[in-house]
Amino acid sequence: MSLPSPAMILVRPQMGENIGAAARAMMNFGLHDLRLVSPRDGWPNQAAIDMSSGALDLMPAPQIFNTLPESIADTHYIYATTARRRDMTKPAMDVRTAMEDAKQRRAQGQHIVFMFGPERTGLENEDLAHAHAIIHVPTNPDFSSLNLGQCVLLLAYEWMAAGEAPSDIFLDMGDSFPAPHKDLDAFFKRLENELDQGRFFKDDHLRANMMRNIRALFLRADLSDQELRTLHGIVSALIGNKTQ
Amino acid sequence: MSLPSPAMILVRPQMGENIGAAARAMMNFGLHDLRLVSPRDGWPNQAAIDMSSGALDLMPAPQIFNTLPESIADTHYIYATTARRRDMTKPAMDVRTAMEDAKQRRAQGQHIVFMFGPERTGLENEDLAHAHAIIHVPTNPDFSSLNLGQCVLLLAYEWMAAGEAPSDIFLDMGDSFPAPHKDLDAFFKRLENELDQGRFFKDDHLRANMMRNIRALFLRADLSDQELRTLHGIVSALIGNKTQ
Repeated sequence: MSLPSPAMILVRPQMGENIGAAARAMMNFGLHDLRLVSPRDGWPNQAAIDMSSGALDLMPAPQIFNTLPESIADTHYIYATTARRRDMTKPAMDVRTAMEDAKQRRAQGQHIVFMFGPERTGLENEDLAHAHAIIHVPTNPDFSSLNLGQCVLLLAYEWMAAGEAPSDIFLDMGDSFPAPHKDLDAFFKRLENELDQGRFFKDDHLRANMMRNIRALFLRADLSDQELRTLHGIVSALIGNKTQ
Repeated sequence: MSLPSPAMILVRPQMGENIGAAARAMMNFGLHDLRLVSPRDGWPNQAAIDMSSGALDLMPAPQIFNTLPESIADTHYIYATTARRRDMTKPAMDVRTAMEDAKQRRAQGQHIVFMFGPERTGLENEDLAHAHAIIHVPTNPDFSSLNLGQCVLLLAYEWMAAGEAPSDIFLDMGDSFPAPHKDLDAFFKRLENELDQGRFFKDDHLRANMMRNIRALFLRADLSDQELRTLHGIVSALIGNKTQ
């Protein structure tokens, strides 16, 4: 089994120049799976091609998605970059630590994702709800705003600098292989639906908040396929009890 | 004594955008001594200001120089960035190692410089002759060309990541404090002149090569003020012998 290359996902990027700079930085450090969620100026984008210095011609064409969940459906572990600290119960780490962690996960066969928000606003809480962990780049507190292309560069650079993790861990994973994102997403949707039927949510605003918290809780648990099946079973059992 | 902030020197930069990106990256990681040697489009440069996202308004105005030696006259230790490996007898290191080395030197009170070449060509051998050490950024061999602003960012990021070196070494330096670049330059010019008088050089091409090699040799030695005075004494003594 060949190990999947990590994906860089730009969520609602605004400037083509930054997409091009990101592609160039990825190629500089041996990465080539670029995904774009709803790029503001559409795709293809001439400014991106110009800025990439040929990188966009050399790498596979970026995959374009309408929504973030579609873009990460086939992946296992999602790191989100944020400039501001958020009030989220997710593990937060600096770039170097994140890349060592990511190398270990990849050595186990996990498909890794790094996601980046739009230039002006960064990732929304709704986006961050999909992430397992937060990457924080330590910067000068008086001038902390990193350019999007620069942020991609730093992660790609540290990815290469982290070298290769020992891959023999892969052999010992047994049935604890993590569930892919699309299966987790399906579980959360099912859960939300069941909770709705049970009048669990007081109103729509509370519902969004509550579901983010629930996602955060389960993502921290790094659920395996087997565990996810167990959770589905638990939900089914509980519903069965209720309707009896 | 407050420790000098390291300088970033862009040698003959072409694109204002890259100067602005460099300034922004410097401010992101707490650096503010930007120097420009003969920028192609002059200075000030609106594209640089736009690209800096306010960094150029917040940091001291960049110093502009006509020549590289002027720009480094007040400094002690010069690191040059190159994409290609050069056939030079200078220590070469990766960015992280260079920054640990630089932090140690700064803790001793040395004024550190990082220099970067023009976008298309990189630093000339003539520029590299002034450097004590070479910084090499490991990149994908199939796509190795780093954007100038990105290269400045990586160094600034690793500068901040290196933290603070213990500064008590400074107290033990005695009279072995390194000679500033302008004194070294004056010595090399005197030496070249004296060698010329002695018909040391066969022709002008060989002269340039030979002087680069001589510079490299003495720069590796990390000469102190005292040692430089000694070398001047040696040259004077040799001349004296010859003319007697």
